[in-house]
This record gives sequence, C-alpha cells and structure tokens, in this order.
Amino acid sequence: MKQQDIFGVDSLHEECGIFGVYDNGDNLDVSRLTYYGLYALQHRGQESCGIAVNNRDENGKIQIVQYKDMGLLQEVFNELVLKELQGFAAVGHVRYATAGASRRENAQPLVSRYQKGSFALAHNGNLVNVAQIRKELEEQGAIFQTTNDSEIIAHLMAKERIRTNSTAEAVMKIMTEITGAYSMIIMTPQRMVVARDPQGFRPLCIGKIKNSWVFASETCALDSVNAQYVRDMEPGEVLVVDKEGLHSYRDMCGQKTSLCVFEYIYFARPDSVIDGESVHRARLNAGKFLAKESPVEADIVIGVPDSGLDAALGYSYESGIPYGVGFIKNRYIGRTFIQPTQAEREAALRIKLNAMRESIAGKRVIMVDDSIVRGTTCRRIVTLLREAGAKEVHVRISSPPFLNPCYFGTDIDNRDKLIACQLSVDEICERIGADSLAYLSIHAMQNLAPNCRLGCCDACFTGNYPVYVPEEDNR
Amino acid sequence: MKQQDIFGVDSLHEECGIFGVYDNGDNLDVSRLTYYGLYALQHRGQESCGIAVNNRDENGKIQIVQYKDMGLLQEVFNELVLKELQGFAAVGHVRYATAGASRRENAQPLVSRYQKGSFALAHNGNLVNVAQIRKELEEQGAIFQTTNDSEIIAHLMAKERIRTNSTAEAVMKIMTEITGAYSMIIMTPQRMVVARDPQGFRPLCIGKIKNSWVFASETCALDSVNAQYVRDMEPGEVLVVDKEGLHSYRDMCGQKTSLCVFEYIYFARPDSVIDGESVHRARLNAGKFLAKESPVEADIVIGVPDSGLDAALGYSYESGIPYGVGFIKNRYIGRTFIQPTQAEREAALRIKLNAMRESIAGKRVIMVDDSIVRGTTCRRIVTLLREAGAKEVHVRISSPPFLNPCYFGTDIDNRDKLIACQLSVDEICERIGADSLAYLSIHAMQNLAPNCRLGCCDACFTGNYPVYVPEEDNR
Amino acid sequence: MKQQDIFGVDSLHEECGIFGVYDNGDNLDVSRLTYYGLYALQHRGQESCGIAVNNRDENGKIQIVQYKDMGLLQEVFNELVLKELQGFAAVGHVRYATAGASRRENAQPLVSRYQKGSFALAHNGNLVNVAQIRKELEEQGAIFQTTNDSEIIAHLMAKERIRTNSTAEAVMKIMTEITGAYSMIIMTPQRMVVARDPQGFRPLCIGKIKNSWVFASETCALDSVNAQYVRDMEPGEVLVVDKEGLHSYRDMCGQKTSLCVFEYIYFARPDSVIDGESVHRARLNAGKFLAKESPVEADIVIGVPDSGLDAALGYSYESGIPYGVGFIKNRYIGRTFIQPTQAEREAALRIKLNAMRESIAGKRVIMVDDSIVRGTTCRRIVTLLREAGAKEVHVRISSPPFLNPCYFGTDIDNRDKLIACQLSVDEICERIGADSLAYLSIHAMQNLAPNCRLGCCDACFTGNYPVYVPEEDNR
Amino acid sequence: MKQQDIFGVDSLHEECGIFGVYDNGDNLDVSRLTYYGLYALQHRGQESCGIAVNNRDENGKIQIVQYKDMGLLQEVFNELVLKELQGFAAVGHVRYATAGASRRENAQPLVSRYQKGSFALAHNGNLVNVAQIRKELEEQGAIFQTTNDSEIIAHLMAKERIRTNSTAEAVMKIMTEITGAYSMIIMTPQRMVVARDPQGFRPLCIGKIKNSWVFASETCALDSVNAQYVRDMEPGEVLVVDKEGLHSYRDMCGQKTSLCVFEYIYFARPDSVIDGESVHRARLNAGKFLAKESPVEADIVIGVPDSGLDAALGYSYESGIPYGVGFIKNRYIGRTFIQPTQAEREAALRIKLNAMRESIAGKRVIMVDDSIVRGTTCRRIVTLLREAGAKEVHVRISSPPFLNPCYFGTDIDNRDKLIACQLSVDEICERIGADSLAYLSIHAMQNLAPNCRLGCCDACFTGNYPVYVPEEDNR
Repeated sequence: MKQQDIFGVDSLHEECGIFGVYDNGDNLDVSRLTYYGLYALQHRGQESCGIAVNNRDENGKIQIVQYKDMGLLQEVFNELVLKELQGFAAVGHVRYATAGASRRENAQPLVSRYQKGSFALAHNGNLVNVAQIRKELEEQGAIFQTTNDSEIIAHLMAKERIRTNSTAEAVMKIMTEITGAYSMIIMTPQRMVVARDPQGFRPLCIGKIKNSWVFASETCALDSVNAQYVRDMEPGEVLVVDKEGLHSYRDMCGQKTSLCVFEYIYFARPDSVIDGESVHRARLNAGKFLAKESPVEADIVIGVPDSGLDAALGYSYESGIPYGVGFIKNRYIGRTFIQPTQAEREAALRIKLNAMRESIAGKRVIMVDDSIVRGTTCRRIVTLLREAGAKEVHVRISSPPFLNPCYFGTDIDNRDKLIACQLSVDEICERIGADSLAYLSIHAMQNLAPNCRLGCCDACFTGNYPVYVPEEDNR
Repeated sequence: MKQQDIFGVDSLHEECGIFGVYDNGDNLDVSRLTYYGLYALQHRGQESCGIAVNNRDENGKIQIVQYKDMGLLQEVFNELVLKELQGFAAVGHVRYATAGASRRENAQPLVSRYQKGSFALAHNGNLVNVAQIRKELEEQGAIFQTTNDSEIIAHLMAKERIRTNSTAEAVMKIMTEITGAYSMIIMTPQRMVVARDPQGFRPLCIGKIKNSWVFASETCALDSVNAQYVRDMEPGEVLVVDKEGLHSYRDMCGQKTSLCVFEYIYFARPDSVIDGESVHRARLNAGKFLAKESPVEADIVIGVPDSGLDAALGYSYESGIPYGVGFIKNRYIGRTFIQPTQAEREAALRIKLNAMRESIAGKRVIMVDDSIVRGTTCRRIVTLLREAGAKEVHVRISSPPFLNPCYFGTDIDNRDKLIACQLSVDEICERIGADSLAYLSIHAMQNLAPNCRLGCCDACFTGNYPVYVPEEDNR
Repeated sequence: MKQQDIFGVDSLHEECGIFGVYDNGDNLDVSRLTYYGLYALQHRGQESCGIAVNNRDENGKIQIVQYKDMGLLQEVFNELVLKELQGFAAVGHVRYATAGASRRENAQPLVSRYQKGSFALAHNGNLVNVAQIRKELEEQGAIFQTTNDSEIIAHLMAKERIRTNSTAEAVMKIMTEITGAYSMIIMTPQRMVVARDPQGFRPLCIGKIKNSWVFASETCALDSVNAQYVRDMEPGEVLVVDKEGLHSYRDMCGQKTSLCVFEYIYFARPDSVIDGESVHRARLNAGKFLAKESPVEADIVIGVPDSGLDAALGYSYESGIPYGVGFIKNRYIGRTFIQPTQAEREAALRIKLNAMRESIAGKRVIMVDDSIVRGTTCRRIVTLLREAGAKEVHVRISSPPFLNPCYFGTDIDNRDKLIACQLSVDEICERIGADSLAYLSIHAMQNLAPNCRLGCCDACFTGNYPVYVPEEDNR
Repeated sequence: MKQQDIFGVDSLHEECGIFGVYDNGDNLDVSRLTYYGLYALQHRGQESCGIAVNNRDENGKIQIVQYKDMGLLQEVFNELVLKELQGFAAVGHVRYATAGASRRENAQPLVSRYQKGSFALAHNGNLVNVAQIRKELEEQGAIFQTTNDSEIIAHLMAKERIRTNSTAEAVMKIMTEITGAYSMIIMTPQRMVVARDPQGFRPLCIGKIKNSWVFASETCALDSVNAQYVRDMEPGEVLVVDKEGLHSYRDMCGQKTSLCVFEYIYFARPDSVIDGESVHRARLNAGKFLAKESPVEADIVIGVPDSGLDAALGYSYESGIPYGVGFIKNRYIGRTFIQPTQAEREAALRIKLNAMRESIAGKRVIMVDDSIVRGTTCRRIVTLLREAGAKEVHVRISSPPFLNPCYFGTDIDNRDKLIACQLSVDEICERIGADSLAYLSIHAMQNLAPNCRLGCCDACFTGNYPVYVPEEDNR
C-alpha cells in the first residue's frame, strides 16, 4: 500500500506532470492520448494519477467525467476505464507528494462545480502565498477537502469567474493574486484554459495533432503521442482553446523569468526540450564544465543511473577519459518491493544497483551524480565501487551544493538535513569515503542551458529567491 | 467494477447508515468497533464505506485521519488499514447511491478543513431544499467537489461555526436552514456532535460501552459491538459529547414527527428496535393485518426472502395457514456475479432464487412480499412458483401501493415507472400472473408500529409530505 | 489470504461439488452454465473452484482449457475468463479442504495428459484405500503433485485406459480397485464419463437442457440453469455421453447402498432432491420426530440459521408451538472479515448472529440446531438467547450425537474432539447452559428420508461403516 | 491478464532463471534471499515465479512448502507470503514461456511426492529428446499435468531414485537419459542437488554466504544477496549439499562443452560473469569487432536500449567515434500497458522508446543493436531516427544473422519468420530503411568471450548443433 523507496528520504521528487488535449474535429481518442502522454510524464509523479474528460451525455449536455486513484498509470487505468472516459477534451495529471493521511483526496485533476458550471483543474507547482489566501477564503466560510494548492486555485476560480465575463479573465485575475510556481490546465465544458506563472518556474509546452491542441509539462509527452511541438507557453501567458481556436492573453507576461534550473539538472526527462534548451544537452554541458573545473586523472568516468549518466558522458567528452558503464540498475524493482528485515539500507541498495566489476576493478574511477542531499546514499554507492575493486573514487556532482529549501514544488529537505549546510566539501568527501569530491560551480550551473530563453531560478543553490517567500522573508 | 444487481432497477435502496463512537477513557479500539458497527449496517448501503478517526499525532496535535473507498466493508478495510486508524473517536458511514460519474468522491465521511479547524461528517438522509441553499452558496463563490447533501451541510457548518461560539450552536443554526431528512454525526478534533432532523425521518440511536458513547442508525449495530442501548435520539435533538460528557440541546425538538414508515416495512434490519417499536414485530403485524384484510383459502404461506419472510410469518400466525419455506436464496451471489449474456432476467433470478418445489407443488400458495415497484420481478417470482407446481398463487404485499416519489432518502422510482400509478390492483394482478393480489391498507400501514413513539411519514403511499417539497409544491 | 471462519473449528464442512455439461448441438454457453451451476453448489466448497472446457483450436483439434484458483466463484471468475473458456463440454468443481501448504495445487478439475490423450477430472468424495494404491503406484515410479484423491484416480485412469478399449471400460476397471465415496465426472476431448461409487455415498444427478446433458452434485444446480431433472445416477453406474448419445453401464450396480445421511441433515441445499427424497422434507421430518421424541412445553420454536431452520419448522408443525425468528444472521460477513483482536469468540459470534430480542424476551424457547461438534459454539448461542431475555432454553438437535469419524468426505473431528464422545447428554446440556437438551434418536434419523431409494450410511452416529475402513479395521 | 509486449513477436526471450540457497548453520532468511536473488534474475523470466522452502513442521518433520503464481516477483510475493516460507533451504524460479492454455500449472518450482519422499525442482533449459522419453513414460501409464520438461525430469527422478541409493546417483543416471540444455536445482527434505548438463548450455554458478551455499543462474544474483562468488558449476557436474557439506560428482564431466553464446550477446545481465568471461566485456568486444569489421564514417554511435548499449560503447571505443545517447526508454511501461486501438505498432514503439533529437539531428548515426529477428522493430527504430533528423543511419548488429532455430531454451522464431533466412543483408538493409547494415562475423562472434572456459553453442547462427536434435536430424 505504501510506496517503498529503497533510497529512503535521500532522494528528490518533482511534484507533478500535466497533460491536456482538445480535439478540434480530428476525432481523437482523447483519454487514450492523455494516458499515453501521462506515461511519458510518469517520472514527474508516481503517487497518484487521474484523467478528466468532457463528455456529452445522452441529452447532449456536456459533463466532466473523471477517474483518478493512488498508484501508477498501469495500476489505476485499464481498457475498461479508458473506454468510459470518452469525450472531446481531456486533462490528466500525475502526482508525487510527501506522505499524508488523506492522500487519496489529493489526487488530481480536481473537478469542482460552482455557480457558472464546472471545471477540472490540473496543476503543477507550488504557491508561496497560500497561507494568506487560505485565511481570507476561510474567513468567508470556505471549506477545504484536500491539502492541494489546486483547491485554493479552484476556490479563487469560482469567486473570480462570478465577477468576470470569461474564464480567461478570471484566470488572469487569479494570477494577480497568487504567487509562486504554477503551470496549469483548466478544462470547462466548453473550453480549455492553460496558464503558466509569470516567472515560468515549471515548464509547459504546446503541441498539435492535425488541427487539435495538446499541452504537456514536457515535450517528451508530445513525442509520445506523435504531436508536433509548436512552442512553449510563455511565462505569464494564458491560452484559451475552444471551437473558435486558440487565443493567447499575455497581460501578465514580461516579468523577470525564473525557470527552475533543477528541471535541467534532474527533474525533466533528458529527451525533453524546455524553453529552448535540450535537457540532455544541459546535462552534457554540466559534465563538461565539471571536467574543466575539477579535472582529475582517472581511467574511467561512470554515472549513477539514471540521472547521472548524461553528465558523466559530458565529463568524458571534455576530459577524454573513457566513459564506462559503472552500475546496472534493476529495472523490476517497483513499489511493492519487500525490504530487508534488518533495515540494512546497504542491502537494499545492492539489490537495486550493482557495480560493474569489469569496468571498475583496479581502475581510478570518476563517478558523476546529479546531487547530494543527505550523503548517505552517496556513501553507499562509493562503498559499492570500493567493493568492486575501484582503486580511487572521485565523486563529481553536476550541480552546486544544496543550501536552501525550495518553495516552488521541489521536495528539497530542510536545511538541517542538507549535508552541505552542515559540512564543508572536504568533510563531505571524507563522509562519503571518496578520494576527491567536487561540485559544479554556481557560475557553470548558471551557464549549463545557454539556449534557454528564460532566466533560471537557482535559489536552492544561491538563496536568491525570485519572488517574495514569506518563510524566507526575502523582501 | 460496476455493481450488478440481478434484480436490476426493480428494487428499493436505502441511502446510508452511520455509526460513531467516542471513547471516554475506556481505551476502546474505536476504528474496529466502527468497522463492526458498520457491518451490522451494511444492508443500508453497499456502494462505498469509510471511517474517520480523531488521532493525536507525535506532537500531541489531534488530527482527523480517514479511509474510504468504493465497495463493501470487506473489500475496503483490512487489518492494516484498521490499525492505522487509531484514535479516541471514530465516525463511519456506509452508502448506497444511484449511479453517477464521480462516485468515488461521494464516499463518506466527508472531512473538511475550515477556519476553526476540521471536522468529519457522516450523514444519512436527503434534504429537500438544497437547490436554494446551493444557489446561495454558489453566489458567494462556493465550489462543490461532490454531489452529496453532506457537502452542503459542511459548507453551512463552516459558515455558521465562524459566526457562533460552538459547534452545537452552529449545528442548531444550520438546522433552521435545512429541511428534510438527516441523521448525522459531526466529529471535530475535540468532540462529537450528533443531530437528528426535527421530523425524525431517519432513525438514530444512542448506546453505551462502559463510560463511552456509541451512536448508530439502528440498534442492531449497538448489539454487534455489545453496547447497551440507551435511547433514541429525539427528532430535532442535538447531542454534544466531549471530555465533559454528554449535553443535549432540544431547541429544535417538539415539531410534528414523521419517521419513515418504510424503515419498518423494508429498510431496517428486523432485529432493530426503532423509536420504541421492534422492526420484526411491525412486520409480523403487517402480515397479521394482511391476513385479516385480505384472507384467502390456501395450503401454505411463504415469504419472498429476505424482506417478505416476517410478514409471511405474521400472516400465518393470524390465518392459521401453515408457514412454509418457499424459496432458497443463493447466499454467495455478490457484486461481481456475471450476468447471463442474453440478458434474460428470468435466468438471473433463477440463480439467485430457487422455488422450493417440496413446499409448493400441488399447493394453494400465499406469497408475501414487502412491495411491488415495477412489477417485473414480482411476475418472475410468481412464474417460479407456477413452474414449481403451485396450484394457486395469491400475492399479498405488506405495504400499500407506491404512488408517490420519496424526497427523504428512499430510492423510489419516478411515478411513470411505478406500476401502481399506471394500473389498478386487478390489472397488476393480471400483469404479475397471480390468482389474487392484495396490498396492505393505508389504515393498517398506519398501525403496524403501535409502540413507535413518533408519527410516521407515509408520503410514498399517501402523498402527505410532512414538509414542504419544492418538486411537489405541497404548501 | 486465509479463510477466516469466525466459528473456528466448530463447524462441519462438505468436501466438494461437481458440475458438468455436454452440449449436444444446442449451442450452449457451457462455461457460463457451469459457472451458474457451481454457484448453486458453492455451499459444498468455498476454498477453490475451477472449470475446464473442451475447445476446438484453430486447427480443429480439441484441447482441454482450464481455469482454477483459490477462492469463491465471484473471486476467481470474471467475464473475461469465462469468455476464454469456450467449448462444447465443460466440467466444474468447488472444493473445501482442511488447510494445507500446497493448497493451490489441489484445486480441481485436475487436467492430465497421458498416452491416449488428455482428460479433466472433477471428483467429490473420499477414498478409503488410497494408501495401498498410492504405495503400488509409487513402487512403479509415480509422482504426485497434489494431495487429492483425484490424482490417484487420474493415475489409475492412465494405466487402465492403456490396457482397455474405452474410457468407460477403464473407469469400470478402476471402480473395482478403489473403495469409498466418489461421484466424478471425467471429460475427455471426445466424451464425458460420469460415475458414482457402488455405495452411492455422495449424490449425483442427471439433467437435460434441450438435447444436451447436465450432471450435478445436487438438483438445485439443475434448477439454477433451468435444466430438467432426469434422474439420479445409480450407485455403481457409469455413464458415457458423446455425439452418439448417452450410454449407461451398470456392471458395478446392485451392491448394498449407503448414501451419506448427513447430506439430508446438513450438507445439501434444502431445495435439492437427493435420490428421491427432498432435503427440505427430510429436515422437516427430523424436526417432527424430535418433537415427538423430545417434547417440552415452550412458547416458541426457533432454528439456528441457516441449517437449523427447517427442522425448527418441522418441530413447530408437530408440536403446535409457534415457529419464530430467533436470530438474524449477517449476510455480509465474508472471508476477509477482520477478527476481534482479543480473540473473544463471543464477540465474533455476536457480529455474525444477533438474537431477536422481540421473539425471545420472557419466552420459553426451543432452539433447534443440526448438530453439536465440540459444544463451544452451541454454548455461545445459548448465551445469546439468555442475554436476549429467554426464560428457558431447550436445545433440540436434529441428528444423533456424533461418535465416530467419517472417512467418506465429511470433515468430522477426531473422537477426542467430539463432545459426545466425552460427555453424557446431561453433561453436555450443562456444558452448553441449556435447560434441556435432546438429540434425534438413531431410529428417527434412519427414517427421516422415507422416499430415499437408497440405504444410508450413518456411521458417524452408529459406527456401522458400510465398507472396510483400514483405520477402523471393521472387517 | 495477458502480457502485452509492445514489441510483439519481434523479440527474444530467455526461458528461465533459478536460484537456491542451503543454510548451513548461518540462520539465514532463505526465502528472502531467494526473493532477492530472483529479483536479479527477473530479466530471465517474467511470466511466473515461485519459491519452495524446506521447513520443519511442529513435529520436527521436514516438509516442502511452496508458493508460486503467474506474474512478476512484485506481483506474486509480499511480506506475508515470504514470512510463511520459513526454512533452512529454498529454491526459486522465474519463468518465461510462450503462451499456452494451462500456463499457471507450468509455474515452477515443481514439487513432487514419490516413493522416497518429495522434492522441489527448478529447471532452466530445454531438452531435445523429451518426445521419446515421454512416450516411454506414457507407455508405463504416466500422467502429465504440465507441459514443462521439468515434469519429465521429475518422472525420471522418481523412477531412478527407487532403483538407486542416493539422489545424486539418481540424478547422474537421469543425465545419461536426457539430452539438451538443463541447469537445475533439486531440493529434497535433507539436501540440495544441483546439476548442469554436460554441454553446459545454460550458466549456473556457486556462491557462499558465510558457511552457507548459494546457487544461481548468474553471478548478478550472487551480488544481489552479497554472496561471494566461488566458481561456476562444471558442465556435467552434480553437486550435493547437505549437513555434511558439499560433494561434487564429475562422472558426466569432460564432454565437449557448448555454452549458449547468446547468453553473452543478449540474455544475461551485463554485470554477470559467466564461465570466466564478463558479459559486459563480451558485448564491448562484439562492438569493437563490429567497428573493425564494418567501419563507417559517422558522427555518433548509439545503442538500442538496453541490450545494444554495451556493444555501441565498444564500437565507439574502437572507432573513436563519440558514443551518444540515442534513445530514452520509458521505464514505467509494464505488462498492463494499454495498447493503441488501431494496432499501430509504430505508436506503441513511440511511447516505449523516444529518439533523442539532440544527439541525432543532422548527424550521421551508427545504431547498434544485438540482433534482428523479423526486421519490423528494427525498421520502426530506424524510422524514429529519421524523424529525429538523422542524416544517415548505419545499423550494426552485434551478432551474426539468425539462420536456425534453437532447441536449447532460446525462443528463436521458425526459419520462415527469420528475415535473414529470407533476404540477403542488402535486402534487409533496404527493408529496414538503413543507409548501411552490417552483422558481426561468425569469426568475431566466436571470439567475443576469450576468457570463457567453455566452448560455445552458436547453432542459431551456424547450424552446428552440438548434440543430436531429432527435428534437425543432424546425426
């Protein structure tokens, strides 16, 4: 029943992926497309998933029908369910969340009925001023059935839609009230409204299948349904799709942008292109910078699967040291994997990850990973390499040290759990048992995505929060 | 996935059962007790079920934790889930509902967070003035995630609680706003508030285990947890239980009462005692009245299992005609029963119900059932008796003909589906293929529960709706 | 995962039910019919179930395809599975078994391939000379993958079929080798062979749907598929059905017969007619005899659901004391019911069975049940009646005391667990807390089925084993 | 219910993986270790899995308890099941099999009871002379409940064990009777007997945890339980482990060996070392040879995940052309993945595999894969690269063309489905739409594992079957 992550708390999680399709006369199977699109976004959330469709009932009335539950797509959906989700528009969501009692309630999309009808909302991101908004709503008697920011947005939506002339207008009004990260799709019976926060924290792109429109957190989801990539949503942009076509509202555009740099470093799938820059290339770049900044003599460069592989390849390209396969990751370990009884984390890791003795024995090894959070997993992986006969282990991290919490949808630990807040790089090196350790420099991190059209948020490394965060009081 | 009722639309369903327990220092396993209590109430709702508990977290803060899902208790709960539902108070719910797209959302209890904290609400009944209230709430910007009346009550609760000094006060205020049937339990972190509508449409009783309090839709649920029956909630009464004990507020009491008479005739379990009258005795009485009002010469009296058995026994007592076993009902047919392909309803019925040839062959049979809705099931059952060799089949119905819809939580068909709205008794008799047919008289129906302390609502038979029903405009 | 019987060890279990259908040009859906037929036999076995069909593959070759698993029919089968089980003949099985490690393997039908092809075997009963046969087979190098008698029969079948000219001949040869209870259906690609042991321990009847043949453990299964009852299999008869029709071989007929009397008392469904006698009537008779043999002044006669109800009615008929409803049994408690933690059996019973206070309070009660095994359950039920206010409780058992184990497929406890082997009737009466206790006499038991065409085995009461049982050495 | 492989028939499957552990006083959790070991072998079989343990019951008697079912380890096993599988020895199995009606029956280990007791058998491989043996067994009256070769071996085991003095002797006798591929573990209540066929077709290695013995199909399973690798089983060797230690019987050793070369090319996990050679190194070698034999000017070398990656890296090493990431494989697509309706295989492939445009666009690409079976998948993958902008696509296959079926446990298509049996290399190149195509030479294939201590079977490429195969009549 519970997700069993054998890496325990020592890993990062992205909060969500969203996908929407509006069929413009192409007779698409919208729920199936959404299902496929979400499959390509499953790495962005494995706790729950859901799809809502706009369907015309026997009386010709359009109704929103939804299905969502805890679990992976393959656990929640089946042929029968997909077939009952017929319609001309669909919106889907995959979600990761830290544990909580009423988790089932938090699955998205969130379908709400209100004065003007109903809507389904799929949201990726994290707002920073919910406390104040929630307080105001509560004073007016609002009730909350979830702990999602999405429910806050739904409340605002109902309130603003009553006072305004269109969903788009209401959404733009809401965007003046909420601060933080949000890429979202709102599906009403008649149209689909898509919005991205003015900073552009989370990615959101637009695609096309024939005459129909597709929206997805990442371009890899467009590829999976063979949609043509059109462009990325602009930060602050509101798009409305209906029978009359696509309308873009940019009243909120033009602010200083701050796309989450960790999308490039860890979150996004490497085959996605975000705001102009290939994720894969950004990771190769990170590896190349690392090689330049922190060279070391060695026989082989390896990456920690899966997220360290690209940077390792980049390091190899730049240094000329051969790239090798350092680990084999067991592809069959799922959420119901049974843990070792004596709670030996080393044992668990050993089952998930096996060092490739052939590549490593007797070698000086450069091991590239994307980040170090608490240090325990890293220490175990270094141990695996030592046991496999590595003569030297040089750890290279393709991002700077984590020093600050994230308030925009990344599940980064509190400062008191972050090893880099407690120890110097040398101390960390000793703690993880490496022969040397180097992080990517801030400067290099800021240059790993040269084609990115947006500015980047790197607050987790630098502490420069691009918007006011009450908890940090960074006014 | 879908409930397969082989009797199809031709049967009645009650909407809900509720159960609550507040542990007053007895160290009870409240979720387990609620689970057992709900088992005794499972006949009141098989679509979904849920339990919410008040639990103190590691920091000593009380939190409401819940678990609910589609399905029977045995499908939704297991040892693991029950163990995670620890606490000092619990509220549970079983629900039947007519089909709908977003059914999962409708499972109860409904847990809401609002300005003053949070509460779990379990509700049995049906309000008649929700349309107006919903409209008013919507004008204030409210959003609705379910189609339950419970959500309406939760909204009112949040609004009124802000303006008042206590939950009890808020509940009493709400009771001036809502009209219709409601027996409900509201669990806040500190207390449990229990209320019954001023008409007392749906039953609700109070029990005790040592020093702790138990609330249940029916006394059979008290029996199942070995609780002592204390008394029934008074119509209009509001009870508050907290560490200081039990407080009763009766400001809303004293109105004309109208307990649903169909609880005696069909809904409630025969071993329950509702507002002073044994359900079993009421059904025996119905049978006795039938025998007096509509005697016929016969060799045997049989009942249609399970709800017709008691009245058949009463008929036998009064008439002196031997009571016999007329049918064997297959106890293993559950919701996943696979239907005959050619949609022969007769085949389906035959698997569920087999006529006892030994009792019937060559006999003049009096067959007692509780009601006729559309007539198709009744016709099939009569056919089973004919095939089993019955010489004559005299059908006796232990209630008057259904002539009016119910707006208080009973799933009675529209008038255009009710056979008694279309045909005379003689025509119905011919339609179902019986040798004679008689219904219980209105007068007898009104006297079948002589010990009942309340007046009864018999609108489905008489059209005398005890409160204003907008759809009937019965002012 | 484990069956949870809240009555624990203190109840009786029948071992199996079998069903077969051979479509003779009527284009029947044989797997669906078998599914329905098994539903009517589910009371004979709830641990596992299975269906095997004869199907013609794309090349026109007939293959036996099967599906079986642990669990009830509703847990094992679904629409998809049934649809894959197409064919012109089917054989099905429901099984109860005492616990064992390799239980899944024991599910039937048992499909075997051998020199002459393949066959599916469904078997109900228990052989008494398996030890010797198994030893002989083992000496020839046989391996056994189950602990079923069926596998012994399959081994013999393979051996004899090689030496003989037909399946029927082989079956008759086997019947000279095996001793004990067996009603069985063997389906080969071309035909169906049905056999009943010469003593006729277990029932087996023949039915017809149009031109097609149906075989079932009980007639209630014929009723469920709307088949016409033709006749019972004769003890010792072997029937062969193929395209040429039905052929009966009676070489083994004519021995002294001994149908299990407990089929009438407890096992069979009351709406079945076994070898000429209605099960319901036999139970009424038992009650009538009890009333004659052990009268007592009382106000009401009640039965313990479900198996005590018929005899209670018979007692009422004979005595003139009114029949009443003494208990309500919870129909929703299934195998996944969660047990009370403190292992209070009384609590568990209370949830499953509630005494009907209305019928009992202040009354002198005659409580009829079918048997007493260890006495603990009976004691608890008497306690329920006392708590419900019974003034006197007179227990009447519709069978004689259990004194001997059964070797023919009934799961009767060892002698050292049988209360009647340890205590006198008076002592048992005291132990269970009754005011009086009486069992049915041996004489009455031997006369409860006057229309039965066979002699009965009553060894569990009398010790008169009708065949040689090695463990009893009753030569 | 059915495995949905979106690559359809166009892929290869290995038949099984086996694992055993015999606890020699180290108090190991043998079922948990077996579970972990099987996880590392899951790539060798995903259809069913099972574990059998030797357990001492309450009377001190040793019994074999087993659990097996259809599905992946994570679907079949859970904490509860593992906990019931306690003991001092365990044997486990993962199985792939081509479809079949009675698939559940075929799950292993196969537990049999016979004259001398019982044993559990786990077997990897394929015998070539089963038809004759089965015929002989059938003539003696044997029955077969599965279609596994394992059942044949079990039959022989029962027969030979009766005539011989020990299990080891019996196993050696059997080995003179059976021909073909088999690596197997037989667990009796007292000991574990491990055997490998004289040709050594399938791998099998020995490991140690403290004083206890572990056996596994591949060394990666030893690593996963942190066992020390001891050595590989010798072809023809029979090992007996019991309380007295390890005894090796080599009477059958010394024949010409023929390890399946496809273990190196495709089946085994790259982190395994088989008979002296690292699988990863063998694949690197294959890539290096390919680069020497079939060089081509290009900008990047990519592999088809997962099995083409190592050879691609080897090609890059040798050629100096940069290695790149060509595809991202979706890690979340499991067996319940819902297929596109219009059966467009391209669509399915697109969801599973996405071309990395960043690496490919405008480039001359060398794409390395391990084999081509029917050619359809390869064509689709080439198309993906073209769509991603590849200027040229040069396909290099790290094995020679498939020309002959395998009779030793590899699921290679019939000759009439093998594209290389129908078309020349040039024609295949055109068919798959590549700019050039080259296979590994026979010579290179025979030299890719220079450290391998055994001869290799390469019959699928060369037609040189190392033993007599009736279907090929290669005497």
